[in-house]
Amino acid sequence: MTATDMNERILVSAPGKVILFGEHSVVYQKTAVAASLGLKSYLFLERRQDNIIELVLPDVNVDKTWELHQFPLRSVDFPDSDTRHPTDMPTELKSRLDELTEIEQDTSQRQAVLAFLYLLIMMEQKSATPLTHGFTLCVRSFLPVGAGLGSSASYSVAVATALLILFKEIPSDFTKSAQSEQHLEKINTYAFKAEQVLHGNPSGVDNAIATYGGAKSFMRGQGFATLEGFQSLRLLLTNTKVPRSTNALVAGVGEKRKNYPLIIEPMLDSMNAIALHCCDAFKKSQDKETLMDELEDLVSLNHCLLEGLGVSHPSLEKIRMITAESGLKTKLTGAGGGGCAVTFIRDDVPQTLIDQVMLQLQGEGFDCYETSVGGAGSGAVTLTKGETKNWLLQASRDTLEHYF
Amino acid sequence: MTATDMNERILVSAPGKVILFGEHSVVYQKTAVAASLGLKSYLFLERRQDNIIELVLPDVNVDKTWELHQFPLRSVDFPDSDTRHPTDMPTELKSRLDELTEIEQDTSQRQAVLAFLYLLIMMEQKSATPLTHGFTLCVRSFLPVGAGLGSSASYSVAVATALLILFKEIPSDFTKSAQSEQHLEKINTYAFKAEQVLHGNPSGVDNAIATYGGAKSFMRGQGFATLEGFQSLRLLLTNTKVPRSTNALVAGVGEKRKNYPLIIEPMLDSMNAIALHCCDAFKKSQDKETLMDELEDLVSLNHCLLEGLGVSHPSLEKIRMITAESGLKTKLTGAGGGGCAVTFIRDDVPQTLIDQVMLQLQGEGFDCYETSVGGAGSGAVTLTKGETKNWLLQASRDTLEHYF
Repeated sequence: MTATDMNERILVSAPGKVILFGEHSVVYQKTAVAASLGLKSYLFLERRQDNIIELVLPDVNVDKTWELHQFPLRSVDFPDSDTRHPTDMPTELKSRLDELTEIEQDTSQRQAVLAFLYLLIMMEQKSATPLTHGFTLCVRSFLPVGAGLGSSASYSVAVATALLILFKEIPSDFTKSAQSEQHLEKINTYAFKAEQVLHGNPSGVDNAIATYGGAKSFMRGQGFATLEGFQSLRLLLTNTKVPRSTNALVAGVGEKRKNYPLIIEPMLDSMNAIALHCCDAFKKSQDKETLMDELEDLVSLNHCLLEGLGVSHPSLEKIRMITAESGLKTKLTGAGGGGCAVTFIRDDVPQTLIDQVMLQLQGEGFDCYETSVGGAGSGAVTLTKGETKNWLLQASRDTLEHYF
Repeated sequence: MTATDMNERILVSAPGKVILFGEHSVVYQKTAVAASLGLKSYLFLERRQDNIIELVLPDVNVDKTWELHQFPLRSVDFPDSDTRHPTDMPTELKSRLDELTEIEQDTSQRQAVLAFLYLLIMMEQKSATPLTHGFTLCVRSFLPVGAGLGSSASYSVAVATALLILFKEIPSDFTKSAQSEQHLEKINTYAFKAEQVLHGNPSGVDNAIATYGGAKSFMRGQGFATLEGFQSLRLLLTNTKVPRSTNALVAGVGEKRKNYPLIIEPMLDSMNAIALHCCDAFKKSQDKETLMDELEDLVSLNHCLLEGLGVSHPSLEKIRMITAESGLKTKLTGAGGGGCAVTFIRDDVPQTLIDQVMLQLQGEGFDCYETSVGGAGSGAVTLTKGETKNWLLQASRDTLEHYF
């Protein structure tokens, strides 16, 4: 039995993440809360009869093939991931990776190919079952890139999940397995390695959320904790499509804090209390109405504090104004200065109202997604109806969501 | 020589006030800063040859006359203002005041007439020079009523100033006198008594600012201090004309503070630091550019914190958006929930830009005034060109401002 003697085709999904509370204040050792986002990356994996490894990533315009014999696989010395940071890799491995990646510029294309190859080589080396045939792996993401929605981690988790299934390290129905916790941990560990290769020093929150789903509170250098009692909520995600520099925004807040310490420090404390109140609100398991009342208050408070720090943008204020006219509360999410905004939707808000608000937002040129937060993490299903790579490329978001 | 053997006609002015920083947080023992507003009340006082006392207040639709002999004046027991609160007045005085006021409902008309009569009776009783002839007193205010701009105190200070001049307690050029400080103190003391009659327990800040001008920092129950180094600044004042209940807004903040103490308390601390930073910014006597940079930062910070407390309003956010498009920073002033907004204008902002912004704001239905903060307090000039009561009623704001 070989590694590819598996289910012929599988579909894997991994959610994005959205920061609910605590962006920017998290830089100053305050608590933040992030949750999984209903917008996901979907991965189609198909075994092949030949020796071709094909990677298709339509979102970043990648369509590459390798032959099995090109790979160093078991022949290179792979760093012990527990003691050595993935970026500190042996010269031979590094040069082989560069050779195989074939993209020199540091683009999102290169990043995506590199993460795939890194995971493939690492797993092959550690796997008991060698790779004897090729496979096609195609990933399509509904997460806007560079918008603070964890598209990179979502991709890494999807690839890690698929390759672990390919190498039979986890079953394809791993979420239903009695050992699901161990399986998820394995996925998360590999995905984190890929994130480290791509980003140097990621917090690990994004991949943990893409793996486990739900919501996590976190504090810099202190790890993160799962939010007890968290429940999936309806969410409107609006992308202003206004580009911004996260570094410049973080630096701007740093400047304000330096100039006005006695004004800014209490604001950061207030933001910390907002994140902690969110954790408590779910833990208390109060009725949904009260919970939503509190969450909406926290949304308004946190947004205003962020606006005070100077990281809002006219486009974000416009979203707030449009949604407020329909009684909905909105805050920026992530770095701000453009980027995305989140609006929690109560259960009793009629679809017609949401449709109308979305139309207004789209009329302003924004992308608008009706989705959820706090749903499941990584998952996989075996495909049985003759789905192909092209099927994935053409499927609607609705179609794909129905598989999970 | 009698009390009315004075300069025939005088014009008195007293500014309004505007809260620059610290509204709402001031309720919780935090520092606030208020300054005089270039929008003023103007008072025309003319001695008459007959015994008629005429009070004309076009803004509240009052045109009343009394005959000199109607007055109780020296015949009633007037409370010692130093030991007894003005509202705790002897029954006889109270009933005579009610009789003379002739307005039963508690309207702004009644308040204005009552304040005038109270000051007149009190001064006449204490004055060395009895009133032997009648006079016409006409007050016109450019301050919107009930908008948190100190229109009441501005009126009380103008009336107190005029009556003190009428009774020769102070000279009509009191601002140029070597004893100007004592004269101003007298005006302020009388105006405060009138404010107490009208409002029960006023802080005294509004009348102090209308009397002395400039800017004051204050804290509940702790009195107030003059801002050192304060300089008059250009200001755009925009009145949304959205009515609101100050009590309901204050109660709303109290509710938020009760529900989210760990979030709201730091926000109030931050607001306190904003007001203190404002005081320091003027005291440091740094260059105007740096001062304006800091003031604009404080304006944005304080507004966002107030918005977080839930006391902004879509109309106020619209003003912020319109002015921001021209690079101007705006905050709500006073209770919020509508009411007024202030925009500091740097010296180098061209008039064409201000005109354009004002047109936009007026296009949204707002009243918009180009004025100043921190200018002089109460003042009086002797009229020499045959001006009449009707002249005051018809004069433009520009015309009247030129007298001071």
